Amino acid sequence: MTKVTCTDYSPELFQSQEITDLGEFLARHRPEWCRVRWIDVLGLDQPEIIRALADKYQLHPLAVEDIVHLVQRPKAEDYPGSGDQPGRLFVVARAVDPDEGQVRTEQVALFLGRTTLLTFQEEPGDIFEAVRNRIAARTSRAREHDASFLLYCLIDAVVDGYFPVLEQYSDLLDDVEEELLTRPCLETSRKLHALKRELVMLRRAAWPMRELMAQLLREKHECVMENTRTYFRDVYDHCAQIIDLIEMYREIAAGVTETYMSAVSNRMNEIMKVLTIISTIFIPLSFVAGVYGMNMYVPEAQWRSMYAVFWLICGTIGGGLLLWFRRRRWI
Amino acid sequence: MTKVTCTDYSPELFQSQEITDLGEFLARHRPEWCRVRWIDVLGLDQPEIIRALADKYQLHPLAVEDIVHLVQRPKAEDYPGSGDQPGRLFVVARAVDPDEGQVRTEQVALFLGRTTLLTFQEEPGDIFEAVRNRIAARTSRAREHDASFLLYCLIDAVVDGYFPVLEQYSDLLDDVEEELLTRPCLETSRKLHALKRELVMLRRAAWPMRELMAQLLREKHECVMENTRTYFRDVYDHCAQIIDLIEMYREIAAGVTETYMSAVSNRMNEIMKVLTIISTIFIPLSFVAGVYGMNMYVPEAQWRSMYAVFWLICGTIGGGLLLWFRRRRWI
Amino acid sequence: MTKVTCTDYSPELFQSQEITDLGEFLARHRPEWCRVRWIDVLGLDQPEIIRALADKYQLHPLAVEDIVHLVQRPKAEDYPGSGDQPGRLFVVARAVDPDEGQVRTEQVALFLGRTTLLTFQEEPGDIFEAVRNRIAARTSRAREHDASFLLYCLIDAVVDGYFPVLEQYSDLLDDVEEELLTRPCLETSRKLHALKRELVMLRRAAWPMRELMAQLLREKHECVMENTRTYFRDVYDHCAQIIDLIEMYREIAAGVTETYMSAVSNRMNEIMKVLTIISTIFIPLSFVAGVYGMNMYVPEAQWRSMYAVFWLICGTIGGGLLLWFRRRRWI
Amino acid sequence: MTKVTCTDYSPELFQSQEITDLGEFLARHRPEWCRVRWIDVLGLDQPEIIRALADKYQLHPLAVEDIVHLVQRPKAEDYPGSGDQPGRLFVVARAVDPDEGQVRTEQVALFLGRTTLLTFQEEPGDIFEAVRNRIAARTSRAREHDASFLLYCLIDAVVDGYFPVLEQYSDLLDDVEEELLTRPCLETSRKLHALKRELVMLRRAAWPMRELMAQLLREKHECVMENTRTYFRDVYDHCAQIIDLIEMYREIAAGVTETYMSAVSNRMNEIMKVLTIISTIFIPLSFVAGVYGMNMYVPEAQWRSMYAVFWLICGTIGGGLLLWFRRRRWI
Amino acid sequence: MTKVTCTDYSPELFQSQEITDLGEFLARHRPEWCRVRWIDVLGLDQPEIIRALADKYQLHPLAVEDIVHLVQRPKAEDYPGSGDQPGRLFVVARAVDPDEGQVRTEQVALFLGRTTLLTFQEEPGDIFEAVRNRIAARTSRAREHDASFLLYCLIDAVVDGYFPVLEQYSDLLDDVEEELLTRPCLETSRKLHALKRELVMLRRAAWPMRELMAQLLREKHECVMENTRTYFRDVYDHCAQIIDLIEMYREIAAGVTETYMSAVSNRMNEIMKVLTIISTIFIPLSFVAGVYGMNMYVPEAQWRSMYAVFWLICGTIGGGLLLWFRRRRWI
Repeated sequence: MTKVTCTDYSPELFQSQEITDLGEFLARHRPEWCRVRWIDVLGLDQPEIIRALADKYQLHPLAVEDIVHLVQRPKAEDYPGSGDQPGRLFVVARAVDPDEGQVRTEQVALFLGRTTLLTFQEEPGDIFEAVRNRIAARTSRAREHDASFLLYCLIDAVVDGYFPVLEQYSDLLDDVEEELLTRPCLETSRKLHALKRELVMLRRAAWPMRELMAQLLREKHECVMENTRTYFRDVYDHCAQIIDLIEMYREIAAGVTETYMSAVSNRMNEIMKVLTIISTIFIPLSFVAGVYGMNMYVPEAQWRSMYAVFWLICGTIGGGLLLWFRRRRWI
Repeated sequence: MTKVTCTDYSPELFQSQEITDLGEFLARHRPEWCRVRWIDVLGLDQPEIIRALADKYQLHPLAVEDIVHLVQRPKAEDYPGSGDQPGRLFVVARAVDPDEGQVRTEQVALFLGRTTLLTFQEEPGDIFEAVRNRIAARTSRAREHDASFLLYCLIDAVVDGYFPVLEQYSDLLDDVEEELLTRPCLETSRKLHALKRELVMLRRAAWPMRELMAQLLREKHECVMENTRTYFRDVYDHCAQIIDLIEMYREIAAGVTETYMSAVSNRMNEIMKVLTIISTIFIPLSFVAGVYGMNMYVPEAQWRSMYAVFWLICGTIGGGLLLWFRRRRWI
Repeated sequence: MTKVTCTDYSPELFQSQEITDLGEFLARHRPEWCRVRWIDVLGLDQPEIIRALADKYQLHPLAVEDIVHLVQRPKAEDYPGSGDQPGRLFVVARAVDPDEGQVRTEQVALFLGRTTLLTFQEEPGDIFEAVRNRIAARTSRAREHDASFLLYCLIDAVVDGYFPVLEQYSDLLDDVEEELLTRPCLETSRKLHALKRELVMLRRAAWPMRELMAQLLREKHECVMENTRTYFRDVYDHCAQIIDLIEMYREIAAGVTETYMSAVSNRMNEIMKVLTIISTIFIPLSFVAGVYGMNMYVPEAQWRSMYAVFWLICGTIGGGLLLWFRRRRWI
Repeated sequence: MTKVTCTDYSPELFQSQEITDLGEFLARHRPEWCRVRWIDVLGLDQPEIIRALADKYQLHPLAVEDIVHLVQRPKAEDYPGSGDQPGRLFVVARAVDPDEGQVRTEQVALFLGRTTLLTFQEEPGDIFEAVRNRIAARTSRAREHDASFLLYCLIDAVVDGYFPVLEQYSDLLDDVEEELLTRPCLETSRKLHALKRELVMLRRAAWPMRELMAQLLREKHECVMENTRTYFRDVYDHCAQIIDLIEMYREIAAGVTETYMSAVSNRMNEIMKVLTIISTIFIPLSFVAGVYGMNMYVPEAQWRSMYAVFWLICGTIGGGLLLWFRRRRWI
Repeated sequence: MTKVTCTDYSPELFQSQEITDLGEFLARHRPEWCRVRWIDVLGLDQPEIIRALADKYQLHPLAVEDIVHLVQRPKAEDYPGSGDQPGRLFVVARAVDPDEGQVRTEQVALFLGRTTLLTFQEEPGDIFEAVRNRIAARTSRAREHDASFLLYCLIDAVVDGYFPVLEQYSDLLDDVEEELLTRPCLETSRKLHALKRELVMLRRAAWPMRELMAQLLREKHECVMENTRTYFRDVYDHCAQIIDLIEMYREIAAGVTETYMSAVSNRMNEIMKVLTIISTIFIPLSFVAGVYGMNMYVPEAQWRSMYAVFWLICGTIGGGLLLWFRRRRWI
């Protein structure tokens, strides 16, 4: 079920309502006092809602297509106004949900007009709840700004959502590192593989977010006040930081893999050393014992003290080999 | 056999015909009502057809050469008009066919004039069928636009053809990953190698497609309406997405290889551990048995209870080694 | 406990005092003779101090937020003045402390006005002590310059703090290299891993420092004298050098890892060679001895000289194998 | 022996002669009808020839030095004319010879004036033969263009010479790939190494060729007609394609190495499995046999049916181990 | 001991003298005929000399600091003149000395004025000797140019000093490659590591040299004649070539490491094959012999022909295994 929420506010007043009858709502005039109107669509399974809004607010068909085409790269597109058609700024962002161990990203589409902001969220969970509550607060300074400031607040919320996920990965990476270095086993190697894969995916979401912010920062737009651009710079910095962190985690993960491989090789060396030491000592000794077990005329086997001599031989061979191993630093 | 199709349309009318007698066709005037003429050449084995069209539409010799030279990189070239010679935009694109497990790419050359579009496809399969049918539909809004919009539609069809192929690779990669992580065998390692190779080739096709779109987006051309450039931006985004996906698959594949190598090393470790444990326990025991098999005067062998003592020795040695192995976490 | 120090100076006079009652201090006028006022805040645990300073010096709310948000990337932000609001240059730098074996970075925020510099240090240790002392010296030429020169001096102190840390890493890398090449053991491989990890982190701090300097160098600012920009170029060069060194150490560390892996492989080869030589010689000989230990009618075992013949056989087999090993260059 | 060929042509006439007496030739006037004069020097072992031509055509000393300094990177240098000194465009290209299995590159230097082209080839083999013959043909359209078109033809010949060499490498790579995947042996690994090395060298020759073409495309020059620049774009595309191919081969070769390493590891695994299975089964059995070969009082050895019991024990141990191996999927 | 040499020249005259009393020398006027004065300081251990020259020639304090701070990156800095202070171009270059097997770099600082060039060399060995001698020659055309041409000559000497060092590395790389591929041993792997390390360091010196030249080429400077810039282009080309070579050697060295690792793996495979073949054949045979050595009632051991049967069994087992090994291509 798609849920549509309309939030109107001015510095003095604030009103938020869930829209049930969209047609009636769109036909009504917006209240006089309303300085910014924000229509938030949660869920995309009712195309007729999107169509109605697109007609009402004269959105470009290509942009409307992009709302429901859910594999968009984050981007900002300027649809300049012409004649009586108002200009629109179309932004696609990608939010990330801190699911258990798996990155799930959600596409968010935003249309900015002069006094109106339309947002379309892919998933039912409302990631803009916190922003709405902040605006609702009587003391909020956000209400003094225009619609582009609201756009900033929402994108900021999307970008700040990356940090807790990254922290999760940082912890996970530390765990895997600890585990691999103390007890290298196949299971942890797989965990590391999964972690790297998630980081690749996270990076794929984060890079274009930075490009998006750079574009918003660089290109002027009629609907974005000069004032708001200072705030966009802040979000841009956050994106840069997120990418820095992802790249750092990726490099550390690569280092862990290498260290893991050398730990495995070392372990193998150790195993082989034990085998070689034991075999090298006892295989010759077994041969000597085998010689004296032969059923033929072995002259020295007749001696009384031969048994002692035999152990002397064994001790000499074994001791000599042990000395040799120690000289080679195997023991 | 080369097949030539001529499609004429205006917002109101639509006519598509297969040309059998090219000479007669080129001599005839185009109908008055026709706003866009699209001549589609399927197959390149009849050079005289290409020559005739090149003469009629005053195509540049270098561009004509490029049509039949089938290893072109995707590119856009502007041949500006001069005097009575009309300007032409020459585009070479590379389409991809979803063959079973093997990337096959096909070169498509397009010449855009003010009201005419010429297209040359390398392979007999018509990848533009769907576009033609869409235009043929009475309600099509595409007919209201000019020839450059048709160019957009065709390039869009080419680019969108990459997505199903990528999806195939995504599935294949998941399979290989699953297989390698559960039962690492040589066969799957080869599958992975083949997959990586295909991705390298796909990337080689996709990168210049993006450059091509960036160029179309950046450079103005007399035959491309300002309106159409908004649509080119859309195709550019798709290209960027395709490259993102390819790079992501390549990184994941690299990760799979690494994990595979560590799985193989782990397996080797396990094998060696079994060998070492068995050998290290039984080789010394065999030596002890060998000692008491010697045909010489072994004093303790005369004892009645020596057999029990022997087993005691064996148990002590074996148990001691097992304990040692457990302490080293081998068992 | 936050400690606030106010340093006033002109070419002739110098005065530095610790502020205990900030309110009273901010209410007082600055002395007539004072050309540059530098307020240094050490520690960020008293937000009311930051708030008071921000109000007094009209700092932008976003910048003030960044002071206490301790994971900022180094950056320079220009908050241009407008009307009666003075312009501010906001700089976030990242200093590095030479702790034992662990990189610890500290965030430093600086606000530059025309005649005032505000600095906020994260950690209690005062990294600007040396600069203050240098200015205090009667013969200091630094006092002849304006506030932007003080900014240069402080950033220079931050950047020069990287060099001793890098020297530590250089020594550490040499040690690890020496150790790994003579006695490759797991412990040193872990040290190498830790070293690489630290370098990744150091790089993350150093790269944006260079960007920061490039930005200061490139962009004019009303509070930065043209003269000072020559000095910024110097700091930029130092940043470039630091990054060069970090990248060089990273490449050398990567080379050490590779060499370590091949040392481990070589060692394994050696171990296996010993095992193979011993086993290959004695396993067949043991078989021969075993044959003559069989309790069945073995005709040749009855011969008197069989024992000598047996040793001849053993010598032939053993000698032949040794020769073969030498031919293969195993011994 | 240096061979100098002079080729004069106009749209109507064509004349090519080998120059034996250079002094006399340079003193003579060029024929009235001659529109383009091309002097081709084959071999660089007679510096006096180069000197004489440099004097006659006023070539810059630095450029003349570069002709004989045979390790130049491909480049284009503009020596603009001044006063009565005519402008010159100096181009150094690097041709590649399809030798058996070894890349051999040859340096070609070209000086372009308004109506004259001087070319200097390092090696005696004439790579421009084909171009000269094409111009000689009566129907050649090349003769209608000026000297810069000749420059295009020659550079095009140089660049097109890369394609057969690349095809060779493609075949070689396929062979090595096939061989390595079916029978990984050291010899093929060396072939792969050699192939990679050749690709590195080829890349070193090809990259600056593209830069060279980009420069010719970008920078206007008084001796290059606007018309010719369209043709340069064509050569640029070929260079881009060559580099694409080289990079693709390099990536595939890297993939082959990885797959080879995993094939070798797999093989090792297999070998070790055989050894481990055999040893693990027979070493315990040998111990059992050894026990019953001891010369002491072994009570159960007295039993009549002990031999059958012995085989039962052996069967149980062996069968149990085989079952365990199968459970671990080793067999 | 610091050695100061002053070289004065004009197209007609040349004079070079070692300065012993710097104060007296600086007080004297420069001769009328002198067009270019070059003061060369060899060794930096007498700071008072540098200070005296800096005062006399009005060098910027930051630049003077850089002379003695010996870890500068190569760079060019423009200190533009103002009022009566003449403009200066400050260049720091890094020369490389062909020491035995170890890259040693030396910092060279140069100050260019309109008619004066000051150079400061770190090491006592004079790398500018050759240039001075060339200028001293009566027929030298260098004397006809101004001071910026001398700057070109000196930087050219520095850059050309890289080539013999690179050649050394090329030879060394070939040796190591040869050695590793025929007899992979640990010693050569270490040589390779050292070689790679040296290349990393050489690269670190060479990259900024290219940037330096690019900067000199790009930025106009009052002290550099337009004419000289053509020559700078030549040095830039040499730098590009040096970097190309270093990168090529690095890639080849990386290839050698890979091939070395696969050679080691192959060798290991071979060793293991020998061990496995011998063990797999003789361990079962030893078991058979052990069975017949048991002191119990073994019925078939009583047979007369049992010995022949025993050898038949052994032959069958051994032959069967050999066949199996051949089928698997192990022999």
